[in-house]
Amino acid sequence: MGRWQPDSRSRLEQAAMDLYSERGYEVTTVAQIAERAGLTERTFFRHFGDKREVLFSGAAALQDLLVTAVADAPISATPLEAVTAALEAVGPMFDQRREFAPKRQAIIMASVELQERELIKLASLSTALADALRSRGVPDPAAGLTGEVAITVFKVGFERWIEEDNHRDFTQLLRETLDQLRAVTAPS
Amino acid sequence: MGRWQPDSRSRLEQAAMDLYSERGYEVTTVAQIAERAGLTERTFFRHFGDKREVLFSGAAALQDLLVTAVADAPISATPLEAVTAALEAVGPMFDQRREFAPKRQAIIMASVELQERELIKLASLSTALADALRSRGVPDPAAGLTGEVAITVFKVGFERWIEEDNHRDFTQLLRETLDQLRAVTAPS
Repeated sequence: MGRWQPDSRSRLEQAAMDLYSERGYEVTTVAQIAERAGLTERTFFRHFGDKREVLFSGAAALQDLLVTAVADAPISATPLEAVTAALEAVGPMFDQRREFAPKRQAIIMASVELQERELIKLASLSTALADALRSRGVPDPAAGLTGEVAITVFKVGFERWIEEDNHRDFTQLLRETLDQLRAVTAPS
Repeated sequence: MGRWQPDSRSRLEQAAMDLYSERGYEVTTVAQIAERAGLTERTFFRHFGDKREVLFSGAAALQDLLVTAVADAPISATPLEAVTAALEAVGPMFDQRREFAPKRQAIIMASVELQERELIKLASLSTALADALRSRGVPDPAAGLTGEVAITVFKVGFERWIEEDNHRDFTQLLRETLDQLRAVTAPS
């Protein structure tokens, strides 16, 4: 004994990710996750509503970070500057989980149900950002469009970040992706 | 008799839309749709795979129109000009169905399942546009970003077009929305 044990939540998360990767998300049961983590099903349900939530429990924290950063941006910031600050605020949260992210992405991509859930998550983040911009007095359609642009940058930047040969950090890739989006929409 | 009868497909579509609006999508059955249209269930299934498909059967035609327009854009066109041509190509298809669109949108918004399906449809359109741009030699991430920008303009433009007090046509609103997106991403 004496070996350090991570907390129950992390152990359940790790066990779920391992099983989803090894056997597939659809066939894995909560009982199997709990067993692999050396915990009970009851403990599982103290932390997660169901087996899908293990993959999406970070969404609320991500949304809070984004929304808070938009609210905290200087009054002089343009809508795009405010969401850029928000994207830069979440970069480190992802870089800390560099190992976890590509594994999670592979699990999502293997299941239509999870892809749908992921799209809903991204749509909710876009709406939350737009609402945060409206609270700053940004009118529509600018607020809605800026929310969508931010989530596009997030999504495309994320796909690049998890590529195997990528060695840059997420924040840097988000900045680059935003610059590329601006180049694409710039007058020709 | 002697009264003109629209074809079976349109009658089924109309009956389905009426029932989804009146009673809700979830509780409406194929049998009820067929009965309301004065047709058999067998006829329904000759036209549609299930009751959801009635609401999404236009997606393939929409994707074809978008992709063909990107392919047909002048060689000199920038990626954004190519997708702008694509958006302008689909405008008239929507303006012809001015009555249908807000009704369909209200049905979609009342059902989580349908909202998920709608998000998947939009994601597929974005991917199809990006692929059409890649076929023109547009590299990544520009191709992926331009596909996403086009679908953002489509989505936000659509929401404005179906607003009750809107009297402008869809093509005009798409152009306006694209200009607003460019204003949002322009250097400050």
